[in-house]
Amino acid sequence: MAAPPDALAGRVLAGDPRAIARAISQIEDGEPSGGAPLVGALFPHTGRAYVVGVTGVPGGGKSTLVDQLIATIRGTGLKVAVLAVDPTSPFSGGAVLGDRVRMNRHAADGDVFVRSMATRGHLGGLSRTTGDAALVLDAAGFDVVLVETVGVGQDEVEVAQTADATVVVLVPGTGDDVQAMKAGIMEIADVFVANKADRDGIDRLVQSVEAAISLQPSPEGGWTPPVLKTEATTGQGVPELWATLCRFRERSEPLRASRRQARALARVRALTGELLFARLERALPPGAFARAAAGVVARRQDPYRAAQDLAAQLTAPSETGAA
Amino acid sequence: MAAPPDALAGRVLAGDPRAIARAISQIEDGEPSGGAPLVGALFPHTGRAYVVGVTGVPGGGKSTLVDQLIATIRGTGLKVAVLAVDPTSPFSGGAVLGDRVRMNRHAADGDVFVRSMATRGHLGGLSRTTGDAALVLDAAGFDVVLVETVGVGQDEVEVAQTADATVVVLVPGTGDDVQAMKAGIMEIADVFVANKADRDGIDRLVQSVEAAISLQPSPEGGWTPPVLKTEATTGQGVPELWATLCRFRERSEPLRASRRQARALARVRALTGELLFARLERALPPGAFARAAAGVVARRQDPYRAAQDLAAQLTAPSETGAA
Repeated sequence: MAAPPDALAGRVLAGDPRAIARAISQIEDGEPSGGAPLVGALFPHTGRAYVVGVTGVPGGGKSTLVDQLIATIRGTGLKVAVLAVDPTSPFSGGAVLGDRVRMNRHAADGDVFVRSMATRGHLGGLSRTTGDAALVLDAAGFDVVLVETVGVGQDEVEVAQTADATVVVLVPGTGDDVQAMKAGIMEIADVFVANKADRDGIDRLVQSVEAAISLQPSPEGGWTPPVLKTEATTGQGVPELWATLCRFRERSEPLRASRRQARALARVRALTGELLFARLERALPPGAFARAAAGVVARRQDPYRAAQDLAAQLTAPSETGAA
Repeated sequence: MAAPPDALAGRVLAGDPRAIARAISQIEDGEPSGGAPLVGALFPHTGRAYVVGVTGVPGGGKSTLVDQLIATIRGTGLKVAVLAVDPTSPFSGGAVLGDRVRMNRHAADGDVFVRSMATRGHLGGLSRTTGDAALVLDAAGFDVVLVETVGVGQDEVEVAQTADATVVVLVPGTGDDVQAMKAGIMEIADVFVANKADRDGIDRLVQSVEAAISLQPSPEGGWTPPVLKTEATTGQGVPELWATLCRFRERSEPLRASRRQARALARVRALTGELLFARLERALPPGAFARAAAGVVARRQDPYRAAQDLAAQLTAPSETGAA
């Protein structure tokens, strides 16, 4: 059914849009380790793209802003891809519609690629699938990958942490700033955008964000996140946003190196955990977890004891009889 | 420093508020397996409390609603505890303030216990710490444990899944309904509350939620989530909310049994994964993960390959030389 990873990887490296789409689908559909051969084949060809996360509460005009960013970035001759990450529910369908709108505008441009990532059923694995999809686009030769998320929750924070730079979009008069602070999204912003700059309250919003920034511990790598005003519907402020992102990229090289190490560490740890667990499941008799859970429900044993008994099935060669 | 688990457990079982507070602090501060001896000692004495999650977007009046629920539940003679789960940021401090307000009102009542759970630094472990804290309160003899969360994100969904029943609070005119749908929070609601019933748009909100419910697959266990109107500030509708929760509890026994099994299964699997990983870390030389991550950053190996090499250090007795 699926193309062999090596053939598919070759077509991705050649920039074939259908191969790129198929590669991302494989990553989305697969088990945690499903993307391994494909990512392994593409990995040596990655590391060039600038991955920019765009996050903020729903209704903040992120999609329109990303659309304007595409136009600005294309104007400089760079190739740009967008991953629109939307925790779909049966009632939403927003991602598909958003894609269509954007696809129409940029459909004729072969150097723009827009893809929505369905996250339903991949709880916890969202940052992995997004990260792997960004690798595919990087390998395919896109200079910039914009990762757009919906909402401000833990999902969004984790996705943002897979990016080289993170833009947090706020709008005046909605209490977004408070919500963003609560969700811990302030801490991950490299650039703030106060969108809908024509609205009342824009200056108050900028001031409250700047006040919050000034309360933060001294900025990582010497970069204080600026607060830019934009009007996504007219495109006002968008070239300045892109210029700021380019400046951040130059200025933040030492910061990015430490982020890349931290990101790779988190990634390797998570994947190792998944592989270990899969190995344990193969070693245990079928239904072992369900029986342990039933024992917990019946109060015959507590969950910690049950987990210890199950985990004892895998041992290191150096452990001599230690359970 | 910390009291020995058995002595502390005895005082928790006797309902000593200071012991309860200390037990929850131990769970909050501890490593994933830190709560093990305490939870193990308390576990046989749990399973009686009715754990109710209350979630919804910030600003929906959840805290006020929970405060009114305390009064209603106390009016029936039951003992009630509240866990206010707030993803604190350096700028927030909201939980502390909220607690003080409520503590003042119920301070004289020894059968009310209110506690905020700081979640900062416990990403991913929030549902575990909340679940363990609810066990402590259950063992201490509280009949009802209200778990109040801030916002609608993956965190909140996971916390809600540790409860026996979940109330989702929405308010008119804020687009909350859309946001809740996007975040997948619709699917976890057993009861909807349209709060601020005096506001314009309340009927439209109720209709849109009822329409969304009618689009869902046939309800689990034959329970269709009702949509109740409340005015938390006056207490209007709150006795009906509690009556509905009691009815849900009676009607949903088969559903709750299957939920408890699913919840125990998820819990045992997560704890087992943590224990396995800790065992691997002990088996590896210091810095092994950091070196693997550096290899990934340098593009010498892809993260999947690196993870496979690390995970190969733990094996099952039955595996003969398989790496």
